Amino acid sequence: MNLVIQKYGGTSLGDASKIRRAARRIATEDRPVVVVVSAMGGTTDTMVNLASDLTDAPPARELDLLLSTGEQASAAALAMALHEIGVSARSFSGRDAGITTDGVHGDARIINVDASRVRECVQDGCVPVVTGFQGIAAQSGELTTLSRGGSDTTAVALAAALHADECEILTDVEGVFTADPRHVAEARKMDYLSYGDMAELASSGASVLAHPSVEYASNHRVPVHVRSSATGTCGTWVTSAHSAAPFESERLTAVGVAHQTGQLRCQLDGITPAELSTVTAALADPTLSVDVLEYPPSDKVGSLRFTVKAAHRQQVDWMLAELRAADAFTECHWSGPVGKVSLVGRGFRAHHPRVRPLVLDTLKSHHIGVRDLAVSARRISITCAEHDVLTAVTYLHRTFLAAQRWPSLPRERAVG
Amino acid sequence: MNLVIQKYGGTSLGDASKIRRAARRIATEDRPVVVVVSAMGGTTDTMVNLASDLTDAPPARELDLLLSTGEQASAAALAMALHEIGVSARSFSGRDAGITTDGVHGDARIINVDASRVRECVQDGCVPVVTGFQGIAAQSGELTTLSRGGSDTTAVALAAALHADECEILTDVEGVFTADPRHVAEARKMDYLSYGDMAELASSGASVLAHPSVEYASNHRVPVHVRSSATGTCGTWVTSAHSAAPFESERLTAVGVAHQTGQLRCQLDGITPAELSTVTAALADPTLSVDVLEYPPSDKVGSLRFTVKAAHRQQVDWMLAELRAADAFTECHWSGPVGKVSLVGRGFRAHHPRVRPLVLDTLKSHHIGVRDLAVSARRISITCAEHDVLTAVTYLHRTFLAAQRWPSLPRERAVG
Repeated sequence: MNLVIQKYGGTSLGDASKIRRAARRIATEDRPVVVVVSAMGGTTDTMVNLASDLTDAPPARELDLLLSTGEQASAAALAMALHEIGVSARSFSGRDAGITTDGVHGDARIINVDASRVRECVQDGCVPVVTGFQGIAAQSGELTTLSRGGSDTTAVALAAALHADECEILTDVEGVFTADPRHVAEARKMDYLSYGDMAELASSGASVLAHPSVEYASNHRVPVHVRSSATGTCGTWVTSAHSAAPFESERLTAVGVAHQTGQLRCQLDGITPAELSTVTAALADPTLSVDVLEYPPSDKVGSLRFTVKAAHRQQVDWMLAELRAADAFTECHWSGPVGKVSLVGRGFRAHHPRVRPLVLDTLKSHHIGVRDLAVSARRISITCAEHDVLTAVTYLHRTFLAAQRWPSLPRERAVG
Repeated sequence: MNLVIQKYGGTSLGDASKIRRAARRIATEDRPVVVVVSAMGGTTDTMVNLASDLTDAPPARELDLLLSTGEQASAAALAMALHEIGVSARSFSGRDAGITTDGVHGDARIINVDASRVRECVQDGCVPVVTGFQGIAAQSGELTTLSRGGSDTTAVALAAALHADECEILTDVEGVFTADPRHVAEARKMDYLSYGDMAELASSGASVLAHPSVEYASNHRVPVHVRSSATGTCGTWVTSAHSAAPFESERLTAVGVAHQTGQLRCQLDGITPAELSTVTAALADPTLSVDVLEYPPSDKVGSLRFTVKAAHRQQVDWMLAELRAADAFTECHWSGPVGKVSLVGRGFRAHHPRVRPLVLDTLKSHHIGVRDLAVSARRISITCAEHDVLTAVTYLHRTFLAAQRWPSLPRERAVG
């Protein structure tokens, strides 16, 4: 279907004047539009605060029902604003839009989209305004919310189901930047990005697009256009067309610097080679945001280190208690909170001997103590004190990304 | 079923501490409880303001979807607070609770309640927390909101469907008073009230209980107990047991004084006897809050005067345009806004010659200009300037209700 999905984030729907602006933007689009909305800015935080005022452990079903009201309200409000300027519009709940999930409250995955009612609405010349971030559990019929930032996933899933030309993610920044532009003045907007690079940035802390939505877009080849809701300028296209060719994947390329704060470090000692796969499988639970920094050697007893969001500590502790009961490790040490800074790109494992010293020297020369350094093919991550994070981002960005071309690397440098 | 319905109004759920207090109250009830909630205090007004910021004429469907989020949020929040203190609870939407309406957006009437899921929840030892003010249209399956204050009706309708022992309406006042206790220091709480008296007070402006809920309670003989959510004291029972016996219905009795502001007066001239029934049928639309003050004579051309809420002027104008096009009247004059004060009781028509001068003298001696005076069997209403309303309430209350017994009336007084 020749149409466009437009997803408006909370900051683009923060008050009546912003809702009216979004409505005017929708009215100027030539193609048929399907709109997906987040909750009005601040609403979700207000709800989360109310819930945590009431209880330390809100029942997941009730938390979903509480949080989902935010998107329902903004969808109805935007539909009203569209009517006011003469655009026929109709709000759709996740149920109305045929979005079915796996039923995990608070962290549901979309498993099916039956967009027939949305399509009929478009065919009637009406703009469907769909509540993001929610869907109906396939088995129980209960309302479930997607992982946070899930309105992006709703938009991408509808784009895939309707075979839309593109999925516009309209937000308060101009696109995807080489670092967070609110903190790094030298950050540059990227015009194009591959799904793989975007996924790596998102999982390393770039908040402009939620990781599950990138994965969904990649799996269904949905062209995503991240752009500002306030201006008409082009933003960043995330598509399959901009993936690195196979022969380029080992070439050293820096894409961006992402960062996260509020991380805890955990070290598990005494892991035997026989138990390693059990431990790594448990840590791989996608709801836990565990990022393994260092694995034990595969042939003898050793330690495994990882970071995890402080908010997930309790869940990880429950999981570790089970692993310890099964003698999967002997000791567990927590520390933090720390910050994590990740240089995202390609060829890091192959060029490890050249890049690693450059990262360490850059940070050392700005007096930043590095606690951990982990290298994968697509990412080098370090942990440091939380108050050093923005300095680390700024100088890693300057070293690896501020110049339009890759800096000359000290080839003769010893492996660190 | 041996259970109690507890309905918590918005002021009883205004913030986290009040929600916790409501939860504790529910936990102390010996009988099984079904809870009905309004939106947290202020939420509905915030939503209405947002809608009117966006458009002068919000589509009724979208307004319903916007407003209904308030109750959904408070139901989920109260269920969380109950869990926190160890009470198993579960929030129910209008759909979940089996509440079916006639489908009129913004002013729906409940036409059926299938409370089987609510009953199952109670039988499982769980407290259902039902969102008030909403139900699903029988034909379209769309969400509809009831008329404002409709959470009272939800509570009464569930009480009827579940054959509850009583329907507690928990609010921020101690019960139903002989006048609004926020303005009239001498107002007394009533221990008992008949459905008929309560209905007349509610339709005359007493906001403690919404009129449609009283009608529903009367039709289904649901004992209603209006009481404070903050204290354990008994409030006011509204039941059939306290209706006046037939022989008492003509006895002069004052029950209370109610008032309304923001009323417009309208006079329609040139109504023929043949057209009178057409005009009065049109004005009887229950969504319009029209209160006829004076009818034209039944045998010649004359005028009809009525009051209506200022907020309903537009709708009444549309209706009058149709009537005029059909030559049902010749001229229409609007004036106001005015206030309206109603002395509610029994025997007013029969004792009209005695009561009317007493009303007029009371108001005159406090320099209140009376614009209209209308008498029915159960009510004497006057209109006056809005700024005189509370003075009029205070002195009519003192004359007719402050003494425990009926004041001595001037029997010989001439008819006014």
